[in-house]
Amino acid sequence: MRAVWLLCLMVLGGAALAGEPRARDLGVPFDGAPGPLNAITDVAGVTVGQVTLLDSGDPKHVVRTGVTAILPRGRDTNALPSFAGTFVLNGNGEMTGTAWLEESGMLEGPVLITNTHSVGVVRDAAIAWRVRAGGADASGYWWSLPVVAETWDGYLNDINGFHVKPEHVFQALDGARGGPVEEGGVGGGTGMICHEFKGGIGTSSRRVTIDDHAYTVGVLVQANYGTRDALRIAGVPVGQHLREHRVYSDAALGGDTGSIIIVVATDAPLLPHQLKRLARRAALGLARNGSYAGNGSGDLFVAFSTANVEAVRDHALNTAQFVGNDAINPLFLGTVEATEEAIVNALVAGRDMQGRDGHYVLGLPHAALQDLLRRYGRLAKH
Amino acid sequence: MRAVWLLCLMVLGGAALAGEPRARDLGVPFDGAPGPLNAITDVAGVTVGQVTLLDSGDPKHVVRTGVTAILPRGRDTNALPSFAGTFVLNGNGEMTGTAWLEESGMLEGPVLITNTHSVGVVRDAAIAWRVRAGGADASGYWWSLPVVAETWDGYLNDINGFHVKPEHVFQALDGARGGPVEEGGVGGGTGMICHEFKGGIGTSSRRVTIDDHAYTVGVLVQANYGTRDALRIAGVPVGQHLREHRVYSDAALGGDTGSIIIVVATDAPLLPHQLKRLARRAALGLARNGSYAGNGSGDLFVAFSTANVEAVRDHALNTAQFVGNDAINPLFLGTVEATEEAIVNALVAGRDMQGRDGHYVLGLPHAALQDLLRRYGRLAKH
Amino acid sequence: MRAVWLLCLMVLGGAALAGEPRARDLGVPFDGAPGPLNAITDVAGVTVGQVTLLDSGDPKHVVRTGVTAILPRGRDTNALPSFAGTFVLNGNGEMTGTAWLEESGMLEGPVLITNTHSVGVVRDAAIAWRVRAGGADASGYWWSLPVVAETWDGYLNDINGFHVKPEHVFQALDGARGGPVEEGGVGGGTGMICHEFKGGIGTSSRRVTIDDHAYTVGVLVQANYGTRDALRIAGVPVGQHLREHRVYSDAALGGDTGSIIIVVATDAPLLPHQLKRLARRAALGLARNGSYAGNGSGDLFVAFSTANVEAVRDHALNTAQFVGNDAINPLFLGTVEATEEAIVNALVAGRDMQGRDGHYVLGLPHAALQDLLRRYGRLAKH
Amino acid sequence: MRAVWLLCLMVLGGAALAGEPRARDLGVPFDGAPGPLNAITDVAGVTVGQVTLLDSGDPKHVVRTGVTAILPRGRDTNALPSFAGTFVLNGNGEMTGTAWLEESGMLEGPVLITNTHSVGVVRDAAIAWRVRAGGADASGYWWSLPVVAETWDGYLNDINGFHVKPEHVFQALDGARGGPVEEGGVGGGTGMICHEFKGGIGTSSRRVTIDDHAYTVGVLVQANYGTRDALRIAGVPVGQHLREHRVYSDAALGGDTGSIIIVVATDAPLLPHQLKRLARRAALGLARNGSYAGNGSGDLFVAFSTANVEAVRDHALNTAQFVGNDAINPLFLGTVEATEEAIVNALVAGRDMQGRDGHYVLGLPHAALQDLLRRYGRLAKH
Repeated sequence: MRAVWLLCLMVLGGAALAGEPRARDLGVPFDGAPGPLNAITDVAGVTVGQVTLLDSGDPKHVVRTGVTAILPRGRDTNALPSFAGTFVLNGNGEMTGTAWLEESGMLEGPVLITNTHSVGVVRDAAIAWRVRAGGADASGYWWSLPVVAETWDGYLNDINGFHVKPEHVFQALDGARGGPVEEGGVGGGTGMICHEFKGGIGTSSRRVTIDDHAYTVGVLVQANYGTRDALRIAGVPVGQHLREHRVYSDAALGGDTGSIIIVVATDAPLLPHQLKRLARRAALGLARNGSYAGNGSGDLFVAFSTANVEAVRDHALNTAQFVGNDAINPLFLGTVEATEEAIVNALVAGRDMQGRDGHYVLGLPHAALQDLLRRYGRLAKH
Repeated sequence: MRAVWLLCLMVLGGAALAGEPRARDLGVPFDGAPGPLNAITDVAGVTVGQVTLLDSGDPKHVVRTGVTAILPRGRDTNALPSFAGTFVLNGNGEMTGTAWLEESGMLEGPVLITNTHSVGVVRDAAIAWRVRAGGADASGYWWSLPVVAETWDGYLNDINGFHVKPEHVFQALDGARGGPVEEGGVGGGTGMICHEFKGGIGTSSRRVTIDDHAYTVGVLVQANYGTRDALRIAGVPVGQHLREHRVYSDAALGGDTGSIIIVVATDAPLLPHQLKRLARRAALGLARNGSYAGNGSGDLFVAFSTANVEAVRDHALNTAQFVGNDAINPLFLGTVEATEEAIVNALVAGRDMQGRDGHYVLGLPHAALQDLLRRYGRLAKH
Repeated sequence: MRAVWLLCLMVLGGAALAGEPRARDLGVPFDGAPGPLNAITDVAGVTVGQVTLLDSGDPKHVVRTGVTAILPRGRDTNALPSFAGTFVLNGNGEMTGTAWLEESGMLEGPVLITNTHSVGVVRDAAIAWRVRAGGADASGYWWSLPVVAETWDGYLNDINGFHVKPEHVFQALDGARGGPVEEGGVGGGTGMICHEFKGGIGTSSRRVTIDDHAYTVGVLVQANYGTRDALRIAGVPVGQHLREHRVYSDAALGGDTGSIIIVVATDAPLLPHQLKRLARRAALGLARNGSYAGNGSGDLFVAFSTANVEAVRDHALNTAQFVGNDAINPLFLGTVEATEEAIVNALVAGRDMQGRDGHYVLGLPHAALQDLLRRYGRLAKH
Repeated sequence: MRAVWLLCLMVLGGAALAGEPRARDLGVPFDGAPGPLNAITDVAGVTVGQVTLLDSGDPKHVVRTGVTAILPRGRDTNALPSFAGTFVLNGNGEMTGTAWLEESGMLEGPVLITNTHSVGVVRDAAIAWRVRAGGADASGYWWSLPVVAETWDGYLNDINGFHVKPEHVFQALDGARGGPVEEGGVGGGTGMICHEFKGGIGTSSRRVTIDDHAYTVGVLVQANYGTRDALRIAGVPVGQHLREHRVYSDAALGGDTGSIIIVVATDAPLLPHQLKRLARRAALGLARNGSYAGNGSGDLFVAFSTANVEAVRDHALNTAQFVGNDAINPLFLGTVEATEEAIVNALVAGRDMQGRDGHYVLGLPHAALQDLLRRYGRLAKH
């Protein structure tokens, strides 16, 4: 079955293959300095696992969905929480586990992203995975409140077929790795649409220096939001020029019905209330590309820090480090910049995709994008 | 299988049988005037369905759990949202769907309550139930963000056995009815513990008059919180006298590790921001019985209004009625009083229960409670 | 002028004189162990200054108001912030400075409490006081966002006469001291009313032990809330028995139009998000005495920690200690208990007061309270 | 004294004179359709009053400050509240009165904007103004919790001289008018700096149609935020080209230490929770111009609706209209667009200003801006 999916993947595209260009390869200009991978995995310890479900066998049940897992501390993720915070820009979406994350200031376990109607199975499977791993503590008196977010892929995917199963969650979690992150129509982002182009997973990072300390901010998005009209890239009103194959001319869908999940990771030591501030900055990066956070959009963001590995053990008395508020600006700016770029990366990695009921979504045409950037004096040398 | 459960039910107790006394039958004094059922179902249209799962067949997998469903508008619940608001007193728990509830001001669908590790299956099953019913709209372009809450029953129940299945959710939803609500160890409350006595489902209501309009506030709780020491009933420090069978003398559990979900329903026309205010008052009713909202407690509350049935159709322009802020106090007080009584009802309905690993939890002894009320001059004539 | 006020003070009462009984002196039973002063000043370093304005000379402009200042770090308060958090139970009130307090996680400067219509003068005077002290830093590029809260004393005080002046604020700040705190009709609490008895300032503390570390939680309230009907003391429905001189039988005032400001101080090292949790527990202590947080009530709470004196210097990299979430319960319970007692202390310290337009408010009668406690089996030996 | 100020105004510039170009007059391209005034006063009933304080007489106490008043319902503002909501993007600032605004869902009275250290005097003066007008009700038992916001003008203005007096507040309130709104260094915006150019007051509006109903969204900003580097106008990285007279090269000020207050008005009928959503969209318009909401920035936004004039009378039962959530997108987009343009209007209206200690701030050079827009293919025909 896995082989079939991989085969489909090659035929149908969806995700960018290795060696495919990313946004800055095309000459899209961005501010700031990315890390070596320009990915959330530039934050040391963060691993990402993705399972992509593609099946066109049954025309009534075309599958275009999956699961993306972000593990803040790789294999230590279950044992060691991370300080974390969230922000809801527009709550037409789900991110489970946030009540406890906000209350405790900690993310206990991975962040999982899938489609809207599979949040439940992914959530309970995350617990089952933990049970299989031996549980959270020896007493047996533990519970888990996993963080699972979603965007809606029902235009391309048979979302009410509930095709995500527990084993896909296990695969995503067990398969999580550092290194480059596959972008576009992959994992939870498989069937996603962004500014009426093919969207999905995108990632980016920024390196900043604060008082001689080097820190990294990494961002991963599952981008499924936005109207064509609103799309700006590097300040260029791209969406007002590229008018073909607009999805939302499909009247039944109406205006902006998408969503975006944004995950911000950093190795900078920040306290929970500071990570809430970081999560809020993701909204500003999103806005640079033209979002107005439409009513139908589930724009939910979470930020975590991999620092303070000792502090999060929750002893009776703990010691944490944190960047002072007066020194925090580079991390704010880095979050804005990495979010902006991660979204454009998701668009650039998008490939034409055919889904259920003959629905078709176009990948952002690279040459046309470059033409527009050139016309507006914004094509970077590369 | 169902028959076995019912059999178990009769043998093991857990829930109060019909005709069993409720708190005011025992002479516990409460302020305010309840509705005819003294239940959330006094709010016209609200229905409640509960499925109780009890299985002692396999000593390693003793089942003490279930699902409770509250439908704000009975069979019209899927088609017609309700204005709603939430409050988190202590977020060591889960209530899915609240990002959209808060954003939109509306509860779209039922409120479901189960155990901590079954939130996912209940959530996706709520969508599947909606799909089976024909979905939310004809376009096929809809999604659902169900509201599912939980408390932890792992002391009595084999919680990591994941015994709640989609069909139990369908049963709870399809079986929802008006009329009296079964209390104690039933539905989602089956395996719950409250102040180290048997807890679970409890309900109560208050009738109030505002400027010649009669309104009802109804409350349903799934009570699983609290230490014995802290328990006060009608102001009497009951927990300091009744010392037998304290659960948390079990050192592995530590202090207050429980939770309480509180659902407030009213037929008073209130806007979403006013329903948030109502939800917040549930905390004050809870406090009257002694809670200090311990770190391990997931105290999440939701309030909805069944009024404004036309306003919630989400036309381009809608008309809603609402009680003025200056007139709202009787609804605040009613919420506090009904919450206080619903919790005591859950305790009074609790029966001794044996669960997994030989764990045993005592039902609140009625005669001892009455003795204490009498001793403190608080036993009401009845 | 000052002499006149002091004279008035002696004649009119209002505040409890030294040696006057506090709640537990009368035999009101409370749980938990208070500090030596049973006051917010049991938290080392916290100082309190109060200026009481009483003037009956002009019958059209009877003055019954003042200012209470709480300095988290005494004379170091301007130079050294404190980690802090807030909670709004019902926002019919003002607490300036909370946007920055919440954003930064820090309380920079004192907490000041006065009457509703003098918040502005007190706020700007707090800045002027800081300017006089040399400002916040040498650059001259600093600003201040003082925390000033209020409750409404317009029943007894000529509130629209704006009698609080900058010099009163300076006096309160300069006069702040450790040691016993005067309670009742004093400082910001001078003209306040609580459960239709004379209210005002009250304080209490609890000592707790967490893993062999001793910590103190102190609470100071400016109590101006509540209806007579709702008053419960130690669980006894006192307000339903003591029916004389009910203020809100004055129809123009309607129901619960008061407010309560609660300040929670601790020397336990807590992070900002944990101090928000502490502030939220104040609501549960308030509820024990019967509040339902009426629409007219401004119930705003702030909690701060005097620990982490180095962490708050806002270097580029800082180190903070904090109590683990799993160990935090004694601080939660201490906050609830100290809040409950601080309110009863405010009531017990209240003395009959005559104010503007012949308005008269009764002090809680001690003997009657003791009779009721005895009748309900709740009078403690003392 | 007033004459002197006016004289100063003519000499020193600061605000744009009538007939001066606004952003779109210079060819800055914007999306959407503005109202006839392209100002917040396009929302019928909204009036604006501004008092500008300019005094260079005493070189040690150079005055560059003032007050801007926005009255949602003109002369009926005191008698008739408006539904309202707020959002804090970064809370390094003050907006008094928001606890009650959020709790009640209503803005009772005007919105006032001034400098950071004059919030208090403006707040109490707003109450005194109400007292003079006869108060809020005949009973005398009323209180007021005015909404007063600020940004910091201490670089140009002698902020610790406390030059704003109650009479200036009265003038701003009494002088409020419909019609064109003066922009730039005027009113509360007198001494403000934006992206290291002269900033201050800016305004804009959008007309939208929802299901054949025409609505207007108006925005007024007091812009005092941002670094030069970050400034983008119409997507053009203007700040990376215009490098002269950078204020924050002044090392003592460090990075982004400014703030922006954004007031959103609409005649569309929206409920309080929907107005919170509108306020949140202001952040997205701000982001388009390059803000990353620096730590030192007080980015506080408020949105109100002038519709539902009957609903806000707070009877025991009220009727309100509201736009459905599914139809709300044009109002979201209009808010984003009007915010973006209001900020650029503030910049375009800024004139070179000399302030205290010889501090000098440059007005955005119009010709240079046009050159850059042309170079990047973004200069609109006009």
